[in-house]
Amino acid sequence: MTTTVPENSLPETMTASVLSGVKALAIEEVPVPPVDADEVLVEIAAVGVCGSDTHYYRHGRIGDFVVDGPLILGHECSGTIVAVGSDVPPSRIGERVAIEPQKNCRRCRECRAGRYNLCPNMEFYATPPIDGAFARYAVIRTEFAHHVPDSLTDEAAALLEPLSVAITTMRKAGVAPGSSILIAGAGPIGIICAQTARAFGAAEIIVTDLVAERRERALRFGATRVIDPTQVNVAEAGLDVNAFVDASGSPRAVSDGIKAVRPAGTAVLVGLGSPEMTLPVEHIQNLEITVTGIFRYTDTWPAAIHLVASGQVDLDSLVTGQFDLDHADEALESDTHPDSLKSIVYPGRRSR
Amino acid sequence: MTTTVPENSLPETMTASVLSGVKALAIEEVPVPPVDADEVLVEIAAVGVCGSDTHYYRHGRIGDFVVDGPLILGHECSGTIVAVGSDVPPSRIGERVAIEPQKNCRRCRECRAGRYNLCPNMEFYATPPIDGAFARYAVIRTEFAHHVPDSLTDEAAALLEPLSVAITTMRKAGVAPGSSILIAGAGPIGIICAQTARAFGAAEIIVTDLVAERRERALRFGATRVIDPTQVNVAEAGLDVNAFVDASGSPRAVSDGIKAVRPAGTAVLVGLGSPEMTLPVEHIQNLEITVTGIFRYTDTWPAAIHLVASGQVDLDSLVTGQFDLDHADEALESDTHPDSLKSIVYPGRRSR
Amino acid sequence: MTTTVPENSLPETMTASVLSGVKALAIEEVPVPPVDADEVLVEIAAVGVCGSDTHYYRHGRIGDFVVDGPLILGHECSGTIVAVGSDVPPSRIGERVAIEPQKNCRRCRECRAGRYNLCPNMEFYATPPIDGAFARYAVIRTEFAHHVPDSLTDEAAALLEPLSVAITTMRKAGVAPGSSILIAGAGPIGIICAQTARAFGAAEIIVTDLVAERRERALRFGATRVIDPTQVNVAEAGLDVNAFVDASGSPRAVSDGIKAVRPAGTAVLVGLGSPEMTLPVEHIQNLEITVTGIFRYTDTWPAAIHLVASGQVDLDSLVTGQFDLDHADEALESDTHPDSLKSIVYPGRRSR
Amino acid sequence: MTTTVPENSLPETMTASVLSGVKALAIEEVPVPPVDADEVLVEIAAVGVCGSDTHYYRHGRIGDFVVDGPLILGHECSGTIVAVGSDVPPSRIGERVAIEPQKNCRRCRECRAGRYNLCPNMEFYATPPIDGAFARYAVIRTEFAHHVPDSLTDEAAALLEPLSVAITTMRKAGVAPGSSILIAGAGPIGIICAQTARAFGAAEIIVTDLVAERRERALRFGATRVIDPTQVNVAEAGLDVNAFVDASGSPRAVSDGIKAVRPAGTAVLVGLGSPEMTLPVEHIQNLEITVTGIFRYTDTWPAAIHLVASGQVDLDSLVTGQFDLDHADEALESDTHPDSLKSIVYPGRRSR
Repeated sequence: MTTTVPENSLPETMTASVLSGVKALAIEEVPVPPVDADEVLVEIAAVGVCGSDTHYYRHGRIGDFVVDGPLILGHECSGTIVAVGSDVPPSRIGERVAIEPQKNCRRCRECRAGRYNLCPNMEFYATPPIDGAFARYAVIRTEFAHHVPDSLTDEAAALLEPLSVAITTMRKAGVAPGSSILIAGAGPIGIICAQTARAFGAAEIIVTDLVAERRERALRFGATRVIDPTQVNVAEAGLDVNAFVDASGSPRAVSDGIKAVRPAGTAVLVGLGSPEMTLPVEHIQNLEITVTGIFRYTDTWPAAIHLVASGQVDLDSLVTGQFDLDHADEALESDTHPDSLKSIVYPGRRSR
Repeated sequence: MTTTVPENSLPETMTASVLSGVKALAIEEVPVPPVDADEVLVEIAAVGVCGSDTHYYRHGRIGDFVVDGPLILGHECSGTIVAVGSDVPPSRIGERVAIEPQKNCRRCRECRAGRYNLCPNMEFYATPPIDGAFARYAVIRTEFAHHVPDSLTDEAAALLEPLSVAITTMRKAGVAPGSSILIAGAGPIGIICAQTARAFGAAEIIVTDLVAERRERALRFGATRVIDPTQVNVAEAGLDVNAFVDASGSPRAVSDGIKAVRPAGTAVLVGLGSPEMTLPVEHIQNLEITVTGIFRYTDTWPAAIHLVASGQVDLDSLVTGQFDLDHADEALESDTHPDSLKSIVYPGRRSR
Repeated sequence: MTTTVPENSLPETMTASVLSGVKALAIEEVPVPPVDADEVLVEIAAVGVCGSDTHYYRHGRIGDFVVDGPLILGHECSGTIVAVGSDVPPSRIGERVAIEPQKNCRRCRECRAGRYNLCPNMEFYATPPIDGAFARYAVIRTEFAHHVPDSLTDEAAALLEPLSVAITTMRKAGVAPGSSILIAGAGPIGIICAQTARAFGAAEIIVTDLVAERRERALRFGATRVIDPTQVNVAEAGLDVNAFVDASGSPRAVSDGIKAVRPAGTAVLVGLGSPEMTLPVEHIQNLEITVTGIFRYTDTWPAAIHLVASGQVDLDSLVTGQFDLDHADEALESDTHPDSLKSIVYPGRRSR
Repeated sequence: MTTTVPENSLPETMTASVLSGVKALAIEEVPVPPVDADEVLVEIAAVGVCGSDTHYYRHGRIGDFVVDGPLILGHECSGTIVAVGSDVPPSRIGERVAIEPQKNCRRCRECRAGRYNLCPNMEFYATPPIDGAFARYAVIRTEFAHHVPDSLTDEAAALLEPLSVAITTMRKAGVAPGSSILIAGAGPIGIICAQTARAFGAAEIIVTDLVAERRERALRFGATRVIDPTQVNVAEAGLDVNAFVDASGSPRAVSDGIKAVRPAGTAVLVGLGSPEMTLPVEHIQNLEITVTGIFRYTDTWPAAIHLVASGQVDLDSLVTGQFDLDHADEALESDTHPDSLKSIVYPGRRSR
């Protein structure tokens, strides 16, 4: 393996925030990951904290994925290429990039069909046992290190990952100029979906949330109308939307949202709730509604970069907390604050 | 209104089997329905009995549709044109036709978009208060009186209606040459779906049913494999099908069937069960499965006629009971016989 | 036929600009058209002049459509409802509307499939022998009289028609956030397409035109780059676009544009040139490019209204000439002026 | 590199028919190709002769692909796995397989999108400088060595390749039960397309050809009607087909075929003619016809195997000539015989 690096060669170890069990997070010196021929090594600038990171931190598992060895969290990330594998042009060194944090097998039925997000052999950042980006460096295939223009901040570049979730959602929901959409939940994904719906041309963007402050926030980020579902029966309000997106994980919101969809419309379930939910099957049948979910993304970073660079989606304003690597634990707990939307960890910054 | 009829003009009244309440069915003399300019009058030859007919007969309602006045049942039907409206060429008189038993408004959003099955102003045979075909004559728009070749029997021509359900299902399920499909339920719809799946090119057609005789029957009608779901855990049998079709209405079958679908596959819910069902949402999300239902059909009769005329689908062998109009009540009760698949009522035949 | 009108009933005749042969245009007093049950009568406020109007004016025909009787031109139009047919709620009287100038048969194969633009029985404004909107009043079905908000000018409301062409084009071209598109021709359609491409999210919008002023104009209306095709070989410039739209009708532009499309991309031919063109078939095959055209539109006005009302598309700035009814001939000749983009005729304004 | 082979290890060299220039074909002893970790070595049983093989033989080039070094022809092939790379289970040794003769890069934009047939880095059998299958052995990635059941002959297994072309064509043409299709040309591809159209459910399969014997042949292989285009004006015969497939490469056939397509229908150009052709653009526009081509295939072998194994497509009857390796030149010239449809070369058979 030949890796090209700048003149001052890379250190062999790096600082990382390592999760070893439930709420057991510690700064450790770990080996810099090896760089394969088609990979690049990225010095991480900023990492967004995702609900899945917090879940692993608090519970040590998500479903069948169990943290049974040391794990580096963080998969919404950006940085600068500092070394490249032998098949990658050295000219990429120094490039600012956003990381699409997946490594698919390229060979299976799903990969061959272009659905690499569904590759059963996927290695995904911060999903046991694959390390993520709460570390000085991380490695990624060159085609998934997406060039970002100078106009994007490190934070925005990191948050292209949740924006990719929203783009995938809008594609699945078939949102196009003139569409109407209902979004349940004004958390990070709901808010990014509202902005992305607007960028996809939606004319009517209705957001529901139980909390008044969160509804207000939705109005600032693209919603054309907000609804308090304790006051309005969403299922019977005649919303007649083209598409419903659940970003709440609430069974009631999902059921009511599906009932608000017009004939031949679509419901996309993004929020993670329980493994099973009671859905209004008769309504789905009688109106031929399509219900589906999304699982990560394929080919979204270029579109995401355009949406941010052109000012159609504002990711910087989503940042409500900033933490150095020594305070990654606080970042992971920050979602309990009522105003929290998105926390950023800077792995290159230390305070201790 | 000018209606063209053959030389011996039509009678003003006709015999019909009229439902006036729960299990209250009586032969009555009722007016021959008027024929609008773009309609034809069909002398009914054969009518298939559908589960919805039986449900109205037994319960007097289906959901919000209530039999609160006299209603003529029957919507799977064929016959011969005996009169035409003023905009229809008289040359159609004498033509054998299969009836697509719907009358949409042609003007609403759904009609304009080509989804006339979802027209909110739909008038559908045997759906209160619209009369169906358990009568000497029925009226239908000329474009929904589909010419049938001589090679099709009256019974097969009538059963193009449930075949249309199956065709719509296969289209929604995306079945194509080489597909694998799982069908839950070996009743009439399941059996027709199995045949239709084969005609659409499915390589693997797996049918589940609790009853051994029904599984055997499925093997005769296109299934390549049958499963007794009490013996095999359908959800965990590694079926990995492209598509799942529920023709059972059973919540357990629906849930297990969805779990048997491969990534990016489709589940189409055809069977009518309860208004709500518990679905495996996490599985739907993680595998990006599409779940939908069907509601009637658009533009299926030409394809249906081809499938039967070419011998790819055998509808005649589905007929397990034949009844004259006086025994329509027995036809409506015949589904309780274990071997019953499809009963036919002949409105032109009397026994009393 | 019962038509509802306001208290002061409508006159029986109206002023119109009538074409009776090549360049034979005269103001005449003609009968107000009758209003069917599902129609509305619109007092016309503004009419855009389209290339097809000009073509009929100059040549008396377009292909098989020949002006062989008096014909009222104009199909890009807006106005106010002044009377309604018996099936239309009288509350629509007084409503400002944009007219979707088509009347399809609602019954044929194309209409039933939702492709009413391809209805072989179509009656379209200003297409012989159907009258258009260079008149005080015009009649249209209620569902094709689209409500316009006060924020839209009469001119913008009229120009929703060419915007509908552009929306149809973008849908066919599959333009979505992040797409790249090449547009040949910076005339009215090219300019509206550039704006619409931006509204559909295109990241790269390349416009070619032979005339420097027109290229400059394209940059003001959404183009991110313009090319002089006499200086740059469009076919070999490595543009690698997702979609090519021809709005020029030039065989060379069409051929070169298709060659600029990436694998699996799309070319949509909107510009009217000659009946036949030499296309790069081998390139189309090797790259599996999809080539198609558009013919009018279905279901575009709601999206068009949103794009204008939200400021994403600017139609008012396209207007380069304004004419009263007496000067309709000048409006029809105005396309010869180099700076002309779109002329508007006001049928309610007279100068003689 | 570790390759697993059976106990009697493979020889280092093998016999092959090598093309060194125009019509310069010679039997040579060449190295057995190396087997990469994810590849298998196949002992070739049968190879179909394709028009592209013949073209390279006669002209030394196809477009930009020039035979400027020794080249082994043949890409329609089947055989038995005799050795496997280190990542392939040794249990595959002994398996009868059909070869999908492509090796894509797996990494580029097209590969990531599932369009591996359009990979710009493709290495395809018998396309300079990549060797094909007129040799004792050939190497292919394990996922492109498709298991074939015993019911398929070696010849049929080889001819799954042109069947894959036909399957891709039918998918692009949107052929489904009840469709009507027009196919120009009753050569090998036209005949396989006719059969495949029938298997996809086409109700009407019209084949045109100039030669009476070829039209007769088409009727034996699925055509429901044949037309002599010198006697019937295909463009004006009112065929009104859903889809047109050109398998002739004739400009006149292409133009007339497109004119025979109904509104919103599709034309797929498969035949190779000249780089440019004059197409009826106005017709394409007015009827919104989609024109495209195909380039190889993705994910077709499983469907192809099903179509043959189920008896829906008969490939064996296409074989009109059989040749040992020493007579590969005769095989390559056999297309000049009027009755020739498909010649097979058996690389394991020698006569000299």
